[in-house]
Amino acid sequence: MRRVTSRRPRRSYAPGVTAASTLTPHPRPAGARRREALRAALREAGLDALLVTDLVNVRYLAGFTGSNAALLVHAGDGPGDEARTVLATDGRYTTQAGAETPDLPLLVERACGPALLGATTAAAVGFDSAHVTVDALDTLTAATAADLRRAPGLVERLRAVKDDAEIDALRLACAAADAALAGTIAAGALAAGHTERDVARDLEERMVAHGATGPAFETIVASGGNSAIPHHRPSDAPLADGDLVTMDFGALVDGYHSDMTRTVLVGPEAAVADWQREIYALVDAAAAAGRAALRPGVATAEIDAAARDVIAAAGYGEYFVHPVGHGVGLVIHEAPAMGSTATATLEAGMTVTVEPGVYLPGRGGVRIEDTLVVTGSGAEPLTASTRDLLVLG
Amino acid sequence: MRRVTSRRPRRSYAPGVTAASTLTPHPRPAGARRREALRAALREAGLDALLVTDLVNVRYLAGFTGSNAALLVHAGDGPGDEARTVLATDGRYTTQAGAETPDLPLLVERACGPALLGATTAAAVGFDSAHVTVDALDTLTAATAADLRRAPGLVERLRAVKDDAEIDALRLACAAADAALAGTIAAGALAAGHTERDVARDLEERMVAHGATGPAFETIVASGGNSAIPHHRPSDAPLADGDLVTMDFGALVDGYHSDMTRTVLVGPEAAVADWQREIYALVDAAAAAGRAALRPGVATAEIDAAARDVIAAAGYGEYFVHPVGHGVGLVIHEAPAMGSTATATLEAGMTVTVEPGVYLPGRGGVRIEDTLVVTGSGAEPLTASTRDLLVLG
Repeated sequence: MRRVTSRRPRRSYAPGVTAASTLTPHPRPAGARRREALRAALREAGLDALLVTDLVNVRYLAGFTGSNAALLVHAGDGPGDEARTVLATDGRYTTQAGAETPDLPLLVERACGPALLGATTAAAVGFDSAHVTVDALDTLTAATAADLRRAPGLVERLRAVKDDAEIDALRLACAAADAALAGTIAAGALAAGHTERDVARDLEERMVAHGATGPAFETIVASGGNSAIPHHRPSDAPLADGDLVTMDFGALVDGYHSDMTRTVLVGPEAAVADWQREIYALVDAAAAAGRAALRPGVATAEIDAAARDVIAAAGYGEYFVHPVGHGVGLVIHEAPAMGSTATATLEAGMTVTVEPGVYLPGRGGVRIEDTLVVTGSGAEPLTASTRDLLVLG
Repeated sequence: MRRVTSRRPRRSYAPGVTAASTLTPHPRPAGARRREALRAALREAGLDALLVTDLVNVRYLAGFTGSNAALLVHAGDGPGDEARTVLATDGRYTTQAGAETPDLPLLVERACGPALLGATTAAAVGFDSAHVTVDALDTLTAATAADLRRAPGLVERLRAVKDDAEIDALRLACAAADAALAGTIAAGALAAGHTERDVARDLEERMVAHGATGPAFETIVASGGNSAIPHHRPSDAPLADGDLVTMDFGALVDGYHSDMTRTVLVGPEAAVADWQREIYALVDAAAAAGRAALRPGVATAEIDAAARDVIAAAGYGEYFVHPVGHGVGLVIHEAPAMGSTATATLEAGMTVTVEPGVYLPGRGGVRIEDTLVVTGSGAEPLTASTRDLLVLG
C-alpha cells in the first residue's frame, strides 16, 4: 500500500522549498540496513537477540505499519542471522505484512511478543524496558526460557540519526506545513473575526492538500491572551485586531512529522503594541541564537542555553517555561532531548526543533519554531516560512 | 478552553440522529463523582492511594487534557481525602490546568509521578502496572518510601460504564460520522474514478464540518480487492465499477471516539456480482445477530459467537479474522474486550462496537459496524446510517 501511495502525482510546494520532484527516489524498505546496524549494537551490548515491541521501532526496522506487531532481531553477523529475523502480527494484517515487509518471515499470532519469544532459541534476549510495561514483562517471562534483559533505547539511538530517505520525508512534511501557512495567509484567514478553530482547520486542510496524510499533532492556534498558553487548544474565540496569533503545527508525511511555529499580529499596524514588537524581536533573536549553535559535537543543553540566555538577559527568563526543542522524526518528540538538563550530543543527521517562547500570562506570547537537520558543520532549516514579523488583516 | 469550545454554535446533523441542541447540558467536570467511585475501589483493593499516570485516565478523573500529567487519589471516604487529591503537570500547562481542573490543587513539576509520590505520606500506593513501564517503575520506586503495589485496570473498569455526559459525547461523535457519510454519498464521491484517498479526505473534512475535532482513528477506505484487507490504508487506487468499497471511520468529539463501518457497491446494478450480494447479506445478518445479543449480564464472548456462528454456518468462518468488536470511549479500543476469548460481561452503560466481516483474499470483503450503548434490556445504536446495500455511482 505504501508503494501505491508513493506513486501519487507530486504537487508543487511553496517557493524556496525543495519540490518533491527534485528528490531522488530511495529504495524502500531501508530495514535491512537498519537491522544490520542494530545487530552490531546488540553484539556490543552482549545480547543474542532483541525483542522489538514498540510499533514505531517495528516500522523503522521492518517497514510494517500495522497496529499490532513485534519483531525479533538476532545479534549475529552472519547472513543466517538476518534470515532469522521474524515479524509477528495478527490475522488482520497478513496481506499488509506481505506487501510492506516481503523480505522477512511472518508469524501470525495476536500475542506477538510472547509468540516470538516462545519460538526462539536465543539465550540472552533484550527487551525495551522503557516501552514494556510491568504487566507485559510478566507475560513475556512466562513465554520463554530465555534470559530476558533490559535493553532500553537501542533502536531510538539509531533513529536519532536520520538517513537520506528520512530527511527527504521530513523535508516534504516541512514543505507541506510551509505551503499550508502560505495558503492560509494568502486566503486572508488570519484576520479579525475568524476563529482559532477556523485557522487550525484551514491549516490542516491545506497540509493534506499538499501531500500530508494528516496533521503531525494537535494543531495549536492561540490568539490574544490565549497566546500566553504554550499548548492552547483552538477555541471558537475570534481573532481581534491587536492580537498576537501563535500557530504551532506540522504535517505527517510517510510517517514523518514536521513541527513549526509562527506568531503573527492581526490588525492594522497601528494596533500593534510596543511590548508585542519587543517580545517578538526577543524571541526571534533567541531562536536565531539557538539555531546558530547547532552543530555536531555540541551538547543539546548548550542549544537550550544559547536561546535561554538571550531571553534571560532581557529580563524575561521566567516566561520561557519549556525546553528549547526536541528531536523529531517518526515520533513528534524523540531523541535527542534538548532541555537544560539533557545529556545528548548533536550528530550530523539528527533532526531537531528550536522553539523558544516568551509567554506573558493574561497578555500574550510569542513562539518561533523551526525543524532543522544537523549537517557536517552546522544545521539546515527544513521549514522555510519567513520569520519576519507579519502584521496581517 | 474546553468551556469556551462547548459554547460553539451547534450544527445540524443527519436526519434521525439526535441533534446537539436537544441534549441536556451536563455539569463538567464530572471528575469529583468519578474520583469518589475510584476511592471506593481503592478501599476494596486495600490501597491507601492510587498514582494515576495514564493520560486518558487523568483526563477521565480530573478533566485535564495536557500531554504530561499524573494524579494522586487517596482512598479515604472523608471530605479531607478528596481534598488531598493532587494533579501534577509541567509549566507549559499551568494556565490550562487552572481552567480545566480548578477543583484540585496543582503541583507543577515535569516528572509528575515521582513528584506526587515524593509528596505523599500514604503507605500502600497502587500504580497501574498495565501502563507503567519497567524503567518508569524504577524511577517511581526511587522517589518514595511508600509500598508500591500493582493495581492495573481500576480506572479502566470505571470507564467501561459510561455516564450520561459521556454517552452524549459519543452520540455527537456518531452523529458527525453519520452526517459525513450522508454528505459524501450526496456529493457523489463514491463513484468510479475517485480514489480511496479522495473518499477518506472527504469523510474526514465533513466530520470536522459537523463538529468533530478530527478523525477518531486513521480512516480506512478499501475498494475492490483492497476491501479484503481489514485494515487497508487509503491509497490512490481509483474506485471502479463493480467494486465493494469498505469505509471504516469515526469522529472525535470532546475526547470521545465513534466507530462505524459501511460497505457500498460502486457502479450500475448490472456490475454487482452474486457473490458480493451474498457476502453482504451474510455480514448484515451476522451484525444483526451480534447487536440483538447485546444486553446486560451477557458475556461479551457470546456476542462474538452470535455473529461468528452466522458466518460459520454459511461456510465462511475462516474469512472472519478478527474479534466481533470492542469497547469504545475516550480510547478507540477499550474495555470491555469482545473477542471469542474475552471474559467480560456486559453492563448497562457500556458502549461497544459490533463489526463482523468477511474477507475473501484477492476478491473483496464486507464489514458492517455500529457503535451501540448497552441499555437496561438490550442496546441502542448510536450510529444511524442505513445498513441497506447501497449501489452508488
